[in-house]
Amino acid sequence: MAEVRRRDYEMTDREAMLAFLDAQRHGFLAFVRTDGSPGLVALNFVRVGEQLYFHGSPEGEKMQSLARDPRVTFMTADPFSLIPSYWTDRKLACPATQYYKAVVVHGEVRIVTSREEKAEALQALMEKLQPEGGHAPISASDPLYSKSLDTTAVLALPLTEMTAKFKFGQNQPARKRATIAANLRERSGPRDKETAAEMQRAALRNQGK
Amino acid sequence: MAEVRRRDYEMTDREAMLAFLDAQRHGFLAFVRTDGSPGLVALNFVRVGEQLYFHGSPEGEKMQSLARDPRVTFMTADPFSLIPSYWTDRKLACPATQYYKAVVVHGEVRIVTSREEKAEALQALMEKLQPEGGHAPISASDPLYSKSLDTTAVLALPLTEMTAKFKFGQNQPARKRATIAANLRERSGPRDKETAAEMQRAALRNQGK
Repeated sequence: MAEVRRRDYEMTDREAMLAFLDAQRHGFLAFVRTDGSPGLVALNFVRVGEQLYFHGSPEGEKMQSLARDPRVTFMTADPFSLIPSYWTDRKLACPATQYYKAVVVHGEVRIVTSREEKAEALQALMEKLQPEGGHAPISASDPLYSKSLDTTAVLALPLTEMTAKFKFGQNQPARKRATIAANLRERSGPRDKETAAEMQRAALRNQGK
Repeated sequence: MAEVRRRDYEMTDREAMLAFLDAQRHGFLAFVRTDGSPGLVALNFVRVGEQLYFHGSPEGEKMQSLARDPRVTFMTADPFSLIPSYWTDRKLACPATQYYKAVVVHGEVRIVTSREEKAEALQALMEKLQPEGGHAPISASDPLYSKSLDTTAVLALPLTEMTAKFKFGQNQPARKRATIAANLRERSGPRDKETAAEMQRAALRNQGK
């Protein structure tokens, strides 16, 4: 994860992006604070159709800042295996890298005011993070949740401007990729086999371009 | 990780913050883009004394933006166990939450121009991410690395304005904490035992306050 930047790793398969978003449990939201400096919060999120929803306190710096300037960048990233330099170069440190998946959404957040929409968003978040249930469903008409719905801020971010980088060595020549994949399978660290499988998928996607 | 916000979870033990920074392999850097909107990148980082170092391409939006406005917010977060609502409430969804550790650094980045400092920062990053070695040490005097050092941008961020939130239920009454810890030990998911141990540490720290 040297940095989410290289054109080489751009991923445009929208289904794969949405599947990644749905599998990720938390992300990071950057905004501009009232003094013009950058703010950043970590938060859980849920996708409902073509929007992401976040929740938090209606007070505090984030909401104040967003009421003034709704522009945000949201990112969720999953770091896969670290690739040591010596798998492909005996001397140089430079080939050392981290494979990763990341989805970035730019846009403007909307502060949700409708109790019904708030309830739907929060219920969707519960279904994502606590799929086994075990609570009264969150609904705008249930008095159990009246106070919570009023004191919880909910933000919606449309997925209009969404990009993704899936970095799995797809910019490397086939021979190097094969060496890296063989090393991953041999090392068998916690995410190595999964990383090798992603390398294969990324290479196939690149061939299709 | 509803959101990194609550005063309740503030953590001021500097040694614990530095230990957490050193154990984390990647973080997120928010900055303000030239059009005034928020930018966000994921990157690997290393701490050397009282500074964090990042590296990347000298071209591109991030460096352009930072040359114009060096203000950043850096965050690295580690999500621990999700705590289902039904461990502490039979009806309400509201108690559902995620325990986490997060360190946030506000400040201004300095673009490192000295080749020596660049080499030291990148060598420290290698020692962190590839501690087994297996490469020629990165040094400003080694012609192997001349070109790479010239074409790699390195940023330094002082740890002057550093805060941390370690959220492990320390705002809960002792009885609820005991119930949650017992449930974590019984569920024994991937990070549950570790989370229960962190709950104990956080509660002890809070008693000491």
